[in-house]
Parts: sequence; structure tokens; C-alpha cells
Amino acid sequence: MPASPHVEKHFTSGETVRDVVIGMSDGLTVPFALAAGLSGAVAGTSIIVTAGLAEIAAGSIAMGLGGYLAARSDAEHYASERRREEREVIEKTEVEREEVREVFRAYGLAEETIAPVVAALEAKPKAWVDFMMRFELGLEEPDPKRALASALTIAIAYIVGGLVPLGPYLFLHEAPRALVVSVISTLLALLVFGFLKGRFTGAPPVRSALQTTLVGGLAAAAAFGLAKLFG
Amino acid sequence: MPASPHVEKHFTSGETVRDVVIGMSDGLTVPFALAAGLSGAVAGTSIIVTAGLAEIAAGSIAMGLGGYLAARSDAEHYASERRREEREVIEKTEVEREEVREVFRAYGLAEETIAPVVAALEAKPKAWVDFMMRFELGLEEPDPKRALASALTIAIAYIVGGLVPLGPYLFLHEAPRALVVSVISTLLALLVFGFLKGRFTGAPPVRSALQTTLVGGLAAAAAFGLAKLFG
Repeated sequence: MPASPHVEKHFTSGETVRDVVIGMSDGLTVPFALAAGLSGAVAGTSIIVTAGLAEIAAGSIAMGLGGYLAARSDAEHYASERRREEREVIEKTEVEREEVREVFRAYGLAEETIAPVVAALEAKPKAWVDFMMRFELGLEEPDPKRALASALTIAIAYIVGGLVPLGPYLFLHEAPRALVVSVISTLLALLVFGFLKGRFTGAPPVRSALQTTLVGGLAAAAAFGLAKLFG
Repeated sequence: MPASPHVEKHFTSGETVRDVVIGMSDGLTVPFALAAGLSGAVAGTSIIVTAGLAEIAAGSIAMGLGGYLAARSDAEHYASERRREEREVIEKTEVEREEVREVFRAYGLAEETIAPVVAALEAKPKAWVDFMMRFELGLEEPDPKRALASALTIAIAYIVGGLVPLGPYLFLHEAPRALVVSVISTLLALLVFGFLKGRFTGAPPVRSALQTTLVGGLAAAAAFGLAKLFG
């Protein structure tokens, strides 16, 4: 049973970490920037809390449900491409043989080295289709069971991330004071999160921490400036 | 000069379309939901316009700049993995030979078919590294020049998408009336966008239209409900 060859991932600690990173990156950034922006325009915190919760609900649904549907589409795309390849190795055998040869010619292999590989694949139609899916089309078989877990992980990470910048507005009733606490705690959270993200993804952690904080800080500053201008 | 083998993409019409889809999906959805949510809590539109513009600024920066930095990290990750492979084919030649054999054993090829392929790759170290990058690690060489264009495309698509739901609030001064116009025009835009997205990505267009509209509609409904509850 030829399984797909092992693929080393960018995210060495698995898909759940990747999903947490995706959800929390945006969750820490966008609600933070929205709350900061509104703080430049209104004095009370209740409208900021309302807008922040609405944003967190919308963002987590858009990312979670959107991601779930995209993953399902990927799985269907893979299945339909696979059926096409299964037909083609039977109906257009010579075309598919030539496609295998093309894959290897790209690496400078001679025809007499390629021919036995083509013959060996032809003898095992399932392995041949596996080979074409991965080496010609560059498609990995998606795990359909991951889609739901992945969607929920992303959505929850977005909500948890979003509550960090919004928290101070829940407890303090003057926007300027809540803004100060929110900026300090969220920038710290972005630094820690960026550092851990770097550790898990193999990027230099300090630079990852600074980059993540920069994106969040810039987004918040732009939102604040724009809201001051139009508020 | 062995180039990477041609890879058929999910998005048949290229990377720009993909970037527009990424930016506009979120741009149509999240500002829509935020504006709808706030319409459930406030009567005037000025605060909704402020919040909407702040959100669009934050979202486009988070997606654009975040995407740009992620693309740069991918390019660096590819370069560092490539350097590692270049070292390993020299320093750990037998380990790397065995890794090539493993790739082909997974497809049921016999040792005597594999051996000439290994020998041929070994004779061309650059092609060998190309092969390992793609077939062992599953990494495509990123185009560093794409990163900036991609970031700008995503950010602009987000802004254009976000102005659709926000537009009515700019011209109408009562939130309930603006909400009605915003809901109708955004749901129509989501239907059209989802349909075109399906056409470009190869998914069934009608289903893509309905799914895209469902995500946007659910996000908006949840934000509206939450804001009513807390507003």
C-alpha cells in the first residue's frame, strides 16, 4: 500500500499549533486595532465592547466556518482530480506515461533510466495514480476529519486572542484608560505569541516576536488615526 | 537546468486571482458583520462608519502586511532548507541516497529500478537537491518578488470588499435603513463573488455562491445578535 511519502512541515509541532497560530494572529490583531481605533473617537467603553464582541463573533465565524468550507472544497478537489487521474491512466495511458517521463526529465535523467520506472508504475495502477497526484499535480491527500477540528481550533483561538485586547474595556469605563491597559497587555501578548510562533515554526523567535508585534501595532495605529480623522 | 516540474494549481487563473479572493472574502464578510452588529446597538451611523473604517484599516494591514511577512518567512525557510540539503548530499551522501530510495519504495518500485535513478541524481548534485526539495520535503520555491504584489493585492481587495457593506452607512444617516441597504447589497455581492470564485477555483459555482453568502450572512447575524444582547 503506497502511502504518500513523508513530508516535513513548516510547522514542526503539527496542525493544531498551526491552527492556533492562524486564529490567534488575527484575533490578537484585528479586535485590538478596532478597539484602539474606536478609543480615538468615543469616550465611553460600552460601544467599544459592543463593536469588539461583534467583531470577534464575525471574525471567528468567517475564519472558522470559511476555513471549514475551504478544507471541504480541497478534499473534494483532491477526490475529483484523483478520479480524473484514475481514468486517464486507463484511457490515455501513453499521455500519462509521457507525463511521468517529463517529471524525471526535469531532473536530467536519461530515457533508459526513466523507462523501468514508468514500467514499474504501470504495473501498479494505484501506486501510479498516487505518484501522479503528488509528483505531477503536487496535491497532498487532505484529511477530511481534520476539517472540523481545524475550524473549531481556529475559531476558539481567534476568540481567546480577541478577548486580550477587549478585556480592559470590559472592566474600565473610560476609553482612554482602557486603551492604555489594552495597548500594553496586547503588545506584550503579541511579543510572547510571536516568540512562541517563531519557536514552533522554526523562524528566529526574536524576529518573529518583533514582526508580530509590528503588524499588530501598525494595524492599531492606523485604525486609531483613521478613527480620529473621521470620528 | 532542471526546473521544478509544472504543478497544476487549484486556482487555474493564477496567483492574482487567488489573492483577490483571499482579500475580498474577508473584506466582504467581517466589515459587513461588524456594521450589521453595531446597527443592532446604535441608532446613528457615524459611529458605525468610524468602526467600519477602523476595521477595514486594521484588517487590510493585518492581512496584507501579515501575508507579506509570512511570504518572506517562507522564502527564507525554503532557502535555509535548500542550504541544508546542499550540505547533506555532500556530507551525508548515503543517508540522502536512502531518502531517495524511500521516496520510490513508497510507490512499490523494486531496488533494481531505483538504483539507476539514485545514481543518475548523484551525478547531478543540483538536480538532486531540486529533487529532494520537492519530493522529500514537498517544498516549492517561492517567488520573492510575488510577496509585495501579493500583499498589496490582498490589502486592496480587502478594502474594496469592505466598502461594499460600509457604503450605505456613509450616505444614509439612520442605522436601520442603512442596514437594510447594506444587507441587500452585500448579500448580492457575496453571491456574485462566490459564483466567480467557484468559476476561478474549479468548484461548482452555484454552491460556491451559496456557501460564501452563508458564511457572510451567519457572521453578520451572529454579530447582530451579540450586539443586541450586549449593546
